[in-house]
Amino acid sequence: MPRFNGNGSALGEGRMKSCWYEEEIEQNLRWCYALNGILHTGESKYQDIALLDTKPFGKALVIDGKLQSTEIDEFIYHECLVHPALLNHMHPKTIFIMGGGEGSTAREILRHKTVNKVVMCDIDEEVVDFCRSYLVANKDAFFDSRLELVINDARAELERSEDRFDVIIGDLADPIEDGPCYQLYTKSFYESVLKPRLKENGIFVTQAGPAGVFSHTEVFSCIYNTLRHVFRYVVPYSAHIPSYADTWGWVMASDSPFNLDTEEMDLRIKQRMAGENRYLDGNTFAAASILSKAVRKSLAKETQVYTEGSAKFIYGHGNFRKNRSGLE
Amino acid sequence: MPRFNGNGSALGEGRMKSCWYEEEIEQNLRWCYALNGILHTGESKYQDIALLDTKPFGKALVIDGKLQSTEIDEFIYHECLVHPALLNHMHPKTIFIMGGGEGSTAREILRHKTVNKVVMCDIDEEVVDFCRSYLVANKDAFFDSRLELVINDARAELERSEDRFDVIIGDLADPIEDGPCYQLYTKSFYESVLKPRLKENGIFVTQAGPAGVFSHTEVFSCIYNTLRHVFRYVVPYSAHIPSYADTWGWVMASDSPFNLDTEEMDLRIKQRMAGENRYLDGNTFAAASILSKAVRKSLAKETQVYTEGSAKFIYGHGNFRKNRSGLE
Amino acid sequence: MPRFNGNGSALGEGRMKSCWYEEEIEQNLRWCYALNGILHTGESKYQDIALLDTKPFGKALVIDGKLQSTEIDEFIYHECLVHPALLNHMHPKTIFIMGGGEGSTAREILRHKTVNKVVMCDIDEEVVDFCRSYLVANKDAFFDSRLELVINDARAELERSEDRFDVIIGDLADPIEDGPCYQLYTKSFYESVLKPRLKENGIFVTQAGPAGVFSHTEVFSCIYNTLRHVFRYVVPYSAHIPSYADTWGWVMASDSPFNLDTEEMDLRIKQRMAGENRYLDGNTFAAASILSKAVRKSLAKETQVYTEGSAKFIYGHGNFRKNRSGLE
Amino acid sequence: MPRFNGNGSALGEGRMKSCWYEEEIEQNLRWCYALNGILHTGESKYQDIALLDTKPFGKALVIDGKLQSTEIDEFIYHECLVHPALLNHMHPKTIFIMGGGEGSTAREILRHKTVNKVVMCDIDEEVVDFCRSYLVANKDAFFDSRLELVINDARAELERSEDRFDVIIGDLADPIEDGPCYQLYTKSFYESVLKPRLKENGIFVTQAGPAGVFSHTEVFSCIYNTLRHVFRYVVPYSAHIPSYADTWGWVMASDSPFNLDTEEMDLRIKQRMAGENRYLDGNTFAAASILSKAVRKSLAKETQVYTEGSAKFIYGHGNFRKNRSGLE
Repeated sequence: MPRFNGNGSALGEGRMKSCWYEEEIEQNLRWCYALNGILHTGESKYQDIALLDTKPFGKALVIDGKLQSTEIDEFIYHECLVHPALLNHMHPKTIFIMGGGEGSTAREILRHKTVNKVVMCDIDEEVVDFCRSYLVANKDAFFDSRLELVINDARAELERSEDRFDVIIGDLADPIEDGPCYQLYTKSFYESVLKPRLKENGIFVTQAGPAGVFSHTEVFSCIYNTLRHVFRYVVPYSAHIPSYADTWGWVMASDSPFNLDTEEMDLRIKQRMAGENRYLDGNTFAAASILSKAVRKSLAKETQVYTEGSAKFIYGHGNFRKNRSGLE
Repeated sequence: MPRFNGNGSALGEGRMKSCWYEEEIEQNLRWCYALNGILHTGESKYQDIALLDTKPFGKALVIDGKLQSTEIDEFIYHECLVHPALLNHMHPKTIFIMGGGEGSTAREILRHKTVNKVVMCDIDEEVVDFCRSYLVANKDAFFDSRLELVINDARAELERSEDRFDVIIGDLADPIEDGPCYQLYTKSFYESVLKPRLKENGIFVTQAGPAGVFSHTEVFSCIYNTLRHVFRYVVPYSAHIPSYADTWGWVMASDSPFNLDTEEMDLRIKQRMAGENRYLDGNTFAAASILSKAVRKSLAKETQVYTEGSAKFIYGHGNFRKNRSGLE
Repeated sequence: MPRFNGNGSALGEGRMKSCWYEEEIEQNLRWCYALNGILHTGESKYQDIALLDTKPFGKALVIDGKLQSTEIDEFIYHECLVHPALLNHMHPKTIFIMGGGEGSTAREILRHKTVNKVVMCDIDEEVVDFCRSYLVANKDAFFDSRLELVINDARAELERSEDRFDVIIGDLADPIEDGPCYQLYTKSFYESVLKPRLKENGIFVTQAGPAGVFSHTEVFSCIYNTLRHVFRYVVPYSAHIPSYADTWGWVMASDSPFNLDTEEMDLRIKQRMAGENRYLDGNTFAAASILSKAVRKSLAKETQVYTEGSAKFIYGHGNFRKNRSGLE
Repeated sequence: MPRFNGNGSALGEGRMKSCWYEEEIEQNLRWCYALNGILHTGESKYQDIALLDTKPFGKALVIDGKLQSTEIDEFIYHECLVHPALLNHMHPKTIFIMGGGEGSTAREILRHKTVNKVVMCDIDEEVVDFCRSYLVANKDAFFDSRLELVINDARAELERSEDRFDVIIGDLADPIEDGPCYQLYTKSFYESVLKPRLKENGIFVTQAGPAGVFSHTEVFSCIYNTLRHVFRYVVPYSAHIPSYADTWGWVMASDSPFNLDTEEMDLRIKQRMAGENRYLDGNTFAAASILSKAVRKSLAKETQVYTEGSAKFIYGHGNFRKNRSGLE
């Protein structure tokens, strides 16, 4: 034991900054958190799973080397994913989640008193078991009697099912070509599989990938454009999520118009929901759904649609800056 | 020359990912860009300066190991800093910049046709010379006859000066205790030095540090609160800046009300400004000035004021997550 | 759970390379191991302790952010520290270890059948407890009846003790100025405290810090020179330790001559020791004690002696490259 | 320019530690140098080239993301590669270098007064031009009239040539399967191409990859074993090279015995060579050619031979720790 840190590190500082979690946000861009510990690791048929204890963001769920959500800011992602759609619906009772095995999406849905049934359909049983065991904040949700857990591919399940839902929520990985979820973002999937499973006035909402000034061209603009070909009313919105080191996007779609104003949204939050939101209220959503000029222009010009047969070209992960013509 | 990279790196890939710029955004959180090159380095009496060629963000100006602005997204910061204040003013003719030696703030101001005089007051002549030499996008601004460059401490210059300005812009480093700019953010400075140098209906705007869901407690909320003690109308707003890995904040203040609506802002942009904005228009500003519920609540509760004598306690850089009681 | 690693990482690859242990070997030089896990962490009155599971080196003991030893190559350090001195002694029966709380030094000593008493004197009880609990390879050593554990400062213990030993072994942190162990490397300590506790023909050996072509000027040459002022016969030797990213040094000293040849060393290994060495035999030691021309010349010119009062100047950790005059 | 480094970084410190060169020594193990600058970059038909200015090791030549040699310690590699073979030869006049485009190997050869012709045969003209332009220490060598530069594949050149040489030196990348140099390490190449180009009593020496306690199983042991099938006398030796973070190996081979002793080597250095060696002398070589017990045993057991047709299995880069049976 011959070695001593003479670099003046105070007690308690040394160990802490020695261990790091590192992620390539995109090629050429890294994001690193100091670690307190590696709490649990596991492996499923499909993926590697880890629960880390990070210094800047608390506990962090990592799947296949990609951060999924962190203790201190997952509320932003999940409040934005769930509440705008449920609040815009007159009386959401039955909800279907594509993916969502982490449990946080179900937890937020179950705060809505109108809801009496939530189907969470995730393909990866080990991930669900891992999250149920280790994510304390979602414990109650996993044991809520209104939650029905299905282990299946979401497409297969929706094809098989004869139920119809008030709200369907896409909590899936991005539509990367050759990725596991591409088939769940195509025009034909939305038209022939998903839409028939929505009740009248039903609403579909999906996470829609990075939505930053540059990164929105990766998948956000294309998900938005694809949904415009399928639904009459489509609302894209976004919020900055610190642990993702980016602004994130969601798209909400329906054949009924969205005309909830700020005050009415605040009122429904008060009347229908248990607990208090940390991030979202009427004003927050109003701002989130006004995109910046740069993103707005870009979305308006988007022509790409996700289709099954062709899949001609999908903006590749990390390539978006090549498409920034006009920005330099 | 015995060593060969057998890891399957394609040609052109190897070199590129070998060199990295790394910054500790805060303690325990690192942000790293792959480098193409280190273009220029220099040293002033006060600071180290470098112009890097980064892969993800193009050319990047770094001062004392802290990224200042990058080629591909500096427009977000500078459009947000300059245009809301100038557009809200009826007819801005004379502008004073505290700091701004990079030249980008002057460049944006000079796009306003009403402006006939811009005083840029930066303490660091070498930084100004470095930027004038190397930042191609700001070349024209540095040679514009309306620009008057003063090398001085901004406080000393404002104390000495007898001129009054339509708009004063703070483009300074954050008010870190013992940092070089703390004195330019205090209540007494605003009251006794800055405000007397504003013309009637004059507007002050300052960059105000990180404004993310957590990071706004570092300095943003306190700058906002300090200005509320000095001006009758105060507008905080924010935008996500990819290269900063955070949402950034600005605060605009005046004794005259801000009542420009979205359409009128768009009209003034068209009438008064040369060239086209990339980021900012009426809608973008409307959204930028609606803070999220989390930040809004926190700003409303802020009691700290930057004062000269006391400087009791300033939320330290990197400590903000300790103040997140209630969020866990 | 929206994010997917589209970078083509195969299963099992993603997670593994996300977590890293990082150490600044010296200022400007970093050494990073991929991690499988953080097995145990602890804190003592003096130090932070961690047992990591690293991919390249197996389990690794880290104290105050400085790697101490790793499962797969600690045998190099410990065989080199212990066996040359014990084998050079005619019949080593009693051994005193200054430091050594990890237990590996004791483990190697206890392989010598001549030994009937080992005193391990470490100041940090928590480190000893931590290692006894978690370092499986040293379990037997900690429970060997010949081992006597003393929790005390080694200097105080040697001053207090009236015993004399055949071999004294220094398994301490480097003599960094203001570091915890500086007092255990000075000329006066060696003369008045340590030497009186050696029996006739007794041998002292100490770890002596980095001994690379450049790094030997940090402490190795000075420890060597200090011992030359105290003992008649002094033998410096070195070996490359992969996990340290450097060649390491030891110095053996006595007032009796060292005249064991290669064959005799091999014979004594066979006769006196249980188990088989992995790294050290007669030839290995012969090569280890022939320093390269660069290091030999530098040691011959060394004039610095560690003294208590003066401690004028000690080559600072990480500064050694400044002393490389003549090498450029 | 809003951002200030409040982390207490002293002047001159900030910039310096922001930019890093990073290399994966092997999978799961990284080695990082702080950078002062990126001096030159280039691209050849085959490879990317860069000359970096590193803080810990001075100027560093990097090819395809792999460090080749650094200003402050390249002398170790090149003295070890060149001098033992030339000194063991009775009167070396003509030398052939396979590879060596960097120029340092030629530089060391040209220090031998007996030498009247050096053929440097490198396949990559741009690398040679790059090094000739930028590596100041090798300027004289490149302009020495005894140097003959050939741009060709070394195998093709040796097949084509009718000259015979006193010493042939392999300064090539490691024999990685599918790598560019594998064909220059096979038994049949040595037998049918290389050996016929050696004069009587001629000596062949080659760099032989990492030779650390674990890493020697990558290629060192197999190069050694292959040469044992081709030459009567084969001498493996090694030295720690700080900038490589490893011990490096070379193998020298001939059909005449090597029986130069320590004193005779020192004498020949004095008589035949211009300038003074920094690293190598008789004693240094004596130690370098005594491998540690661990490596010696492993080399003795090596059965793999590099062959052209079969190339069954080559210890993969980074996999060596899997072959460490018996070490755990």
